[in-house]
Amino acid sequence: MPETRAHDFRLGQRVVAEAIASFFLFVCVIGSGIMATRLSPGNDAIALLANSLATGAMLFVLIIVFGPISGAHMNPAVTLVAASRGELSWPDAGTYILAQIGFGVVGVWAAHLMFELPALQVSLHARTGLGQWTGEAVATFGLIFTIIGAVTFRPAAVGAAVGLYISAAYWFTSSTSFANPAITIARSLSNTFAGISPGDVPAFVAAQLAGAALGAVTARQLFDWRH
Amino acid sequence: MPETRAHDFRLGQRVVAEAIASFFLFVCVIGSGIMATRLSPGNDAIALLANSLATGAMLFVLIIVFGPISGAHMNPAVTLVAASRGELSWPDAGTYILAQIGFGVVGVWAAHLMFELPALQVSLHARTGLGQWTGEAVATFGLIFTIIGAVTFRPAAVGAAVGLYISAAYWFTSSTSFANPAITIARSLSNTFAGISPGDVPAFVAAQLAGAALGAVTARQLFDWRH
Amino acid sequence: MPETRAHDFRLGQRVVAEAIASFFLFVCVIGSGIMATRLSPGNDAIALLANSLATGAMLFVLIIVFGPISGAHMNPAVTLVAASRGELSWPDAGTYILAQIGFGVVGVWAAHLMFELPALQVSLHARTGLGQWTGEAVATFGLIFTIIGAVTFRPAAVGAAVGLYISAAYWFTSSTSFANPAITIARSLSNTFAGISPGDVPAFVAAQLAGAALGAVTARQLFDWRH
Amino acid sequence: MPETRAHDFRLGQRVVAEAIASFFLFVCVIGSGIMATRLSPGNDAIALLANSLATGAMLFVLIIVFGPISGAHMNPAVTLVAASRGELSWPDAGTYILAQIGFGVVGVWAAHLMFELPALQVSLHARTGLGQWTGEAVATFGLIFTIIGAVTFRPAAVGAAVGLYISAAYWFTSSTSFANPAITIARSLSNTFAGISPGDVPAFVAAQLAGAALGAVTARQLFDWRH
Repeated sequence: MPETRAHDFRLGQRVVAEAIASFFLFVCVIGSGIMATRLSPGNDAIALLANSLATGAMLFVLIIVFGPISGAHMNPAVTLVAASRGELSWPDAGTYILAQIGFGVVGVWAAHLMFELPALQVSLHARTGLGQWTGEAVATFGLIFTIIGAVTFRPAAVGAAVGLYISAAYWFTSSTSFANPAITIARSLSNTFAGISPGDVPAFVAAQLAGAALGAVTARQLFDWRH
Repeated sequence: MPETRAHDFRLGQRVVAEAIASFFLFVCVIGSGIMATRLSPGNDAIALLANSLATGAMLFVLIIVFGPISGAHMNPAVTLVAASRGELSWPDAGTYILAQIGFGVVGVWAAHLMFELPALQVSLHARTGLGQWTGEAVATFGLIFTIIGAVTFRPAAVGAAVGLYISAAYWFTSSTSFANPAITIARSLSNTFAGISPGDVPAFVAAQLAGAALGAVTARQLFDWRH
Repeated sequence: MPETRAHDFRLGQRVVAEAIASFFLFVCVIGSGIMATRLSPGNDAIALLANSLATGAMLFVLIIVFGPISGAHMNPAVTLVAASRGELSWPDAGTYILAQIGFGVVGVWAAHLMFELPALQVSLHARTGLGQWTGEAVATFGLIFTIIGAVTFRPAAVGAAVGLYISAAYWFTSSTSFANPAITIARSLSNTFAGISPGDVPAFVAAQLAGAALGAVTARQLFDWRH
Repeated sequence: MPETRAHDFRLGQRVVAEAIASFFLFVCVIGSGIMATRLSPGNDAIALLANSLATGAMLFVLIIVFGPISGAHMNPAVTLVAASRGELSWPDAGTYILAQIGFGVVGVWAAHLMFELPALQVSLHARTGLGQWTGEAVATFGLIFTIIGAVTFRPAAVGAAVGLYISAAYWFTSSTSFANPAITIARSLSNTFAGISPGDVPAFVAAQLAGAALGAVTARQLFDWRH
């Protein structure tokens, strides 16, 4: 959302940017989870520390590098909010979302290849219940607030704010804060640390979209005071 | 304190900003403490590392996002110092403080809900003694100095400075640096890693306010050399 | 690549900058690996956390300090991409690469001296296989993208972007992301945490150069839209 | 060194700034070491991780807050280099150094008080040998280079560069990088994680001053090309 300048870049370039950014974000989430649990078999706190720091660092980098081209959404919830604010057209939003999910899944497969695991997997990691759904709604609400707030007041800090927000949210939500429908789908295809059982995906995505919608409405009231 | 621009935002908006910011700060402090102790049962250093990094990251984000609206105090000690410097009126300060405590407590309850714990709790975590009171006074003195110094010399870095200061102060004080009367009250309602027994709250708050007052007076001598 | 200003500094100064920067980067990679494994004999995740944070921090510092003189490449893959983009001459690139390898090896020896290990060592640490080669190609592709993207859109953030990218890549690649032919050679001379068996070096370097070349070509398509 | 503006602040203000900054730096180094070893009795890597991150974070904050007043040296080696470059007078440098050592020792005592330890202690922690002396010389050489380079090319990043450099240097030197004669003296008065036996102080200080002098001479050649 930050620095989308549709007039500077053609749709093709913007979609390629979303595809590469999603690939790297998802390869990072899955890969760092695998590495961390391999190296720290007895202590999941150390694994989550590595996983959360790697993810936050990568988000900072990807928003710096791809933000000025496509907005570096890497997240259908963010793309839908951007479309609702008129920052990109709804057909473009659909293309973005396909690229995020498609190349995100390729990123999951690449992580499996790097760690010499079977490419095609289905997660058995149950993640469900009111507590975790609340976590996803709160996390995505906060993510949308973070993006709109940073874009409004300090556009140069969007990468740092989003990266640090997600690093923190991995810890303060019981669900470890997926906060992203594309990554939720992609994680269902990895039976590793960061996975989620496919049957638990729909409720997670619903909670994320509810949190995002509430965040967008509240943020509009609070930040867009000039309108 | 940083970027309060009372003329830009109505009191209602500013109070909503304090409420949402306090909610997220407190949900982060409590939630990351619960997650960390669950994942690292045998090593509290790893738990405090996660807790301190998550809290510092969240402070950076919240000051970026809400600082330009309300100042993003999230802390009665900061609000009282700001009022004493004429940056907001005393009645506004009172409203700020009510929002900080009220929505901070809601944040504690949300953390409990996310982690499927009883919402209403009372902490049994004893935190008392001259060493810890000294810690709270030193920590709050340093926090006020950090805020006034950064606002004076580098306003764009207030979020980074406050976040990193608190992350460090979690470690160098024996009390893990609450440095915030609202969060001290709210933590007394959580019988988890970050909790504090209600009977120990008054002495902590007194030490914090003493440290804040001393910090404000000393900082005025040192930074406001132009007056 | 970032801020090479060949007109400001003579070749001699630029080569000295590459030499000192490579010395400090390599002493940091090897030294922090030794310290971390000594202090954490039972948990390699903690060791890699320390190793990745120290390396990322040092990259930030070195790019701030030496970037404006020589570009602070410290990496033959980066130097070759820069030469292919016309940012420095091919003979200068050759001199850079000799300085990177030569003083990088001196850095390895200095780390051994500091930790009272024999200076001359050969690593026995096997690192091989399709998974790790894929990791090196992906990691170097991403590094080149990070550099060109940050230089294009946010030159002041190159140090932060490269440091955070490498910290993350240590975790998401199975090879812990060497992504640098000079450091791969130098690491083969250290039989410690960060080492690599000499026989495994050629395939690593080949994968790195392939990833770098693909990254340079792709980045040109995506970022250099003005040409 | 960074932003000393002797014309803006009187010597008294500058010395108070050095005193408060040194107090907080030293209380942070000692206090976070005590906290970390108490919470992580079995793994010194986690303790050093906490100690190094807290120290780096605090350096960032103190350089932001006190740098524009006194330069935020907190380190006689830095003050001597600054004096040799004509950035402050030699008598002022002497006053700075007395404040650094004096209030640094007060910081050590405050840490002991907070953690309910005897205020007056003498360290029994042996730190000696060619490896550690080399470490101190390399670490201080790099610190001086970092400061002069950042001041030359990116003054706003001095705090981040120094903080990250020291966090990294804790790990890549066998001595955990004291790199500061005042803190070496002060640490000899604390029989805790960060201590050093008094008999080992002189050799550490000599190595630090040798590294600093070499760094200053080399940096002058490399950075001050305009002269």
